[in-house]
Amino acid sequence: MKEKKAVILLSGGLDSATVLAMAKAENYRCFAIGFDYGQRHRAELLAAQRVAVGLGAEEYKVVKLDLRAIGGSALTDNNIDVPEQEVKGIPITYVPARNTVFLSIAMGWAEVLGTQDIFIGVNAVDYSGYPDCRPDFIAAFEAMANLATRAAVEGARLHIHAPLMKLSKADIVRCGTNLGVDYSLTVSCYQAQVDGAACRVCDSCRLRAKGFAAAGLKDPTIYIDCS
Amino acid sequence: MKEKKAVILLSGGLDSATVLAMAKAENYRCFAIGFDYGQRHRAELLAAQRVAVGLGAEEYKVVKLDLRAIGGSALTDNNIDVPEQEVKGIPITYVPARNTVFLSIAMGWAEVLGTQDIFIGVNAVDYSGYPDCRPDFIAAFEAMANLATRAAVEGARLHIHAPLMKLSKADIVRCGTNLGVDYSLTVSCYQAQVDGAACRVCDSCRLRAKGFAAAGLKDPTIYIDCS
Repeated sequence: MKEKKAVILLSGGLDSATVLAMAKAENYRCFAIGFDYGQRHRAELLAAQRVAVGLGAEEYKVVKLDLRAIGGSALTDNNIDVPEQEVKGIPITYVPARNTVFLSIAMGWAEVLGTQDIFIGVNAVDYSGYPDCRPDFIAAFEAMANLATRAAVEGARLHIHAPLMKLSKADIVRCGTNLGVDYSLTVSCYQAQVDGAACRVCDSCRLRAKGFAAAGLKDPTIYIDCS
Repeated sequence: MKEKKAVILLSGGLDSATVLAMAKAENYRCFAIGFDYGQRHRAELLAAQRVAVGLGAEEYKVVKLDLRAIGGSALTDNNIDVPEQEVKGIPITYVPARNTVFLSIAMGWAEVLGTQDIFIGVNAVDYSGYPDCRPDFIAAFEAMANLATRAAVEGARLHIHAPLMKLSKADIVRCGTNLGVDYSLTVSCYQAQVDGAACRVCDSCRLRAKGFAAAGLKDPTIYIDCS
């Protein structure tokens, strides 16, 4: 019995792959959505495709959206370097409005599919300090979404599932491993090469490596420096 | 003294042109944003360009965004006809999540520009019944936005201005006329031809004509049937 549909935001990284596996484990028919938003790390789009197929998503849709027109982030402006050391506060890899835009489009697709369940891999423990990854933001988005659509007017209640919110990176890796996620399919690096090889030094690489180490699991990441 | 910046959502239609004129009258430096989202009525993008120039916006940015990937509306799916008679309830020209997505991207640009003021021409009096044009939706979006960004974390309070919300279409036309808006620059029709000629029969054409008639003003719209 797989009657429930869910829209899953899929970036090609570790977190969203784990979320897809969790939604599958809850017997959702999974409709994955990714965004070609002009990101520096194009390898993540290829990774998301592999993850969608590998974990059995029913569909994987890529929506084009030019966030480079707005810029304001190291991920969408080639003139801003990705930091290679830890920084205090919200880092320059924060993309203005990104999760709000992604969730909005996912909300539109959910309405077309006739489902009220959206899954997103945000996390407020081992994360980069992005404001749009916090529980208060997700709750406020959900409240807004429940006024925004035809489905809401007709009485449906949209639910934004953020099952990783309170997990550490180690917990996430353990959970995904238990669900059979092949993390070699995923790419976390902000400046990954097209083949997915990672830089080792960006915030995202460091958080990932720390998570695998803390979980006592082998990280299948391939690094640019080959070691 | 024009120190204040504002982001103005500009569609090329009557309402958003009026809003741009209102923001200018309040001495905002106006940064207009439009969306090439795959809409059937491409003429509105040309109209928005004319309006931005004609009313003195400091910049006009068009963001590409493929809402046809999602569909679900007569405006983004060529297989669904635009209704030519009045319908009950929310019409099929409603585009799932459209205003949420547009406001989200505008919020990102506002953050990059360093402003907290966004203007949108939604209206809940003479309107098509779209859920994302209602005051509750705008208030909920504003609450969410004030948790979503770096600017919000740093204490800035974003404000979504919806100055047309409680005006009738006749009030809007009168207000814009008093501010010197040249409505011949605007295109409201959902199935306008490239030159802007309007169908006369879609919901948007009917609301517009009714507004000018009620205001006792001449509507400069050129119709496809030439009368």
